[in-house]
Amino acid sequence: MPDHEFFMRAAMREAEIAATYGEVPIGAVVVRDGEIIARGHNMREMWKDPTAHAELIAIREAARVTGGWRLTGCQLYVTLEPCPMCSGSIIMSRVDEVYIGAMDPKGGAVGSKINLVESDAWNHRPTVVHGVLAEECGAMLKDFFRKLRRK
Amino acid sequence: MPDHEFFMRAAMREAEIAATYGEVPIGAVVVRDGEIIARGHNMREMWKDPTAHAELIAIREAARVTGGWRLTGCQLYVTLEPCPMCSGSIIMSRVDEVYIGAMDPKGGAVGSKINLVESDAWNHRPTVVHGVLAEECGAMLKDFFRKLRRK
Repeated sequence: MPDHEFFMRAAMREAEIAATYGEVPIGAVVVRDGEIIARGHNMREMWKDPTAHAELIAIREAARVTGGWRLTGCQLYVTLEPCPMCSGSIIMSRVDEVYIGAMDPKGGAVGSKINLVESDAWNHRPTVVHGVLAEECGAMLKDFFRKLRRK
Repeated sequence: MPDHEFFMRAAMREAEIAATYGEVPIGAVVVRDGEIIARGHNMREMWKDPTAHAELIAIREAARVTGGWRLTGCQLYVTLEPCPMCSGSIIMSRVDEVYIGAMDPKGGAVGSKINLVESDAWNHRPTVVHGVLAEECGAMLKDFFRKLRRK
């Protein structure tokens, strides 16, 4: 079975796609039984949709693929610490495990500003693993914003 | 200009539509300049989509209608206190004001379990008004679950 870095690299490829559209490069994949079943990348500006974050798109796609809203038995890989909305979608979809790349000190809701996901407040608590290819995931974002400032 | 109860009754009509599909009756509308620009009702089971909550659907629709992801100048009316995901979508969409019907002691993220929306942790803090037709909004849910138990 491929390892966590393998799947995080797939999420990073999604982030790269977002960057080609001028979107902030954040990507996510959903995995079940060792296979990627859904992918998503940030499309907020292109789709003009405040909910079009990588995780939410990947989770909706995974639900379509599995034919049910419960993503029990699934893992989510995301290049940046999820925001409150995406953290909520992780809880709502009952994903088993969440693998996170870089942290987001300004807007993260899985340990930075608050921790919505590793909480007993809700009727589902996924397992969270931080720091999978954190440096590489963070470097993508830094590069993107550096280039943006030069324009 | 119509008042808050007028718009909450429109959200309640959305909730009623959800109930006709056997969905938990929760409804939402988005208002701009005194007019309803988007509606949504819970469709989680029918759409097999963990993100298909009333608020998230209404917010996405409002973004489509306004042609941008920022719902500045908009109000959201929702019959039940939003969950963490929908609270996050309220923050992400930059809705100005949120009017809430009944509270959700078990899963609410706008005062019950936590308060994600009335927080200075994020770069947007909407105004929240609780208790708009709270009893009627709550009664719809109680009736729904009472009938469900009888089946």
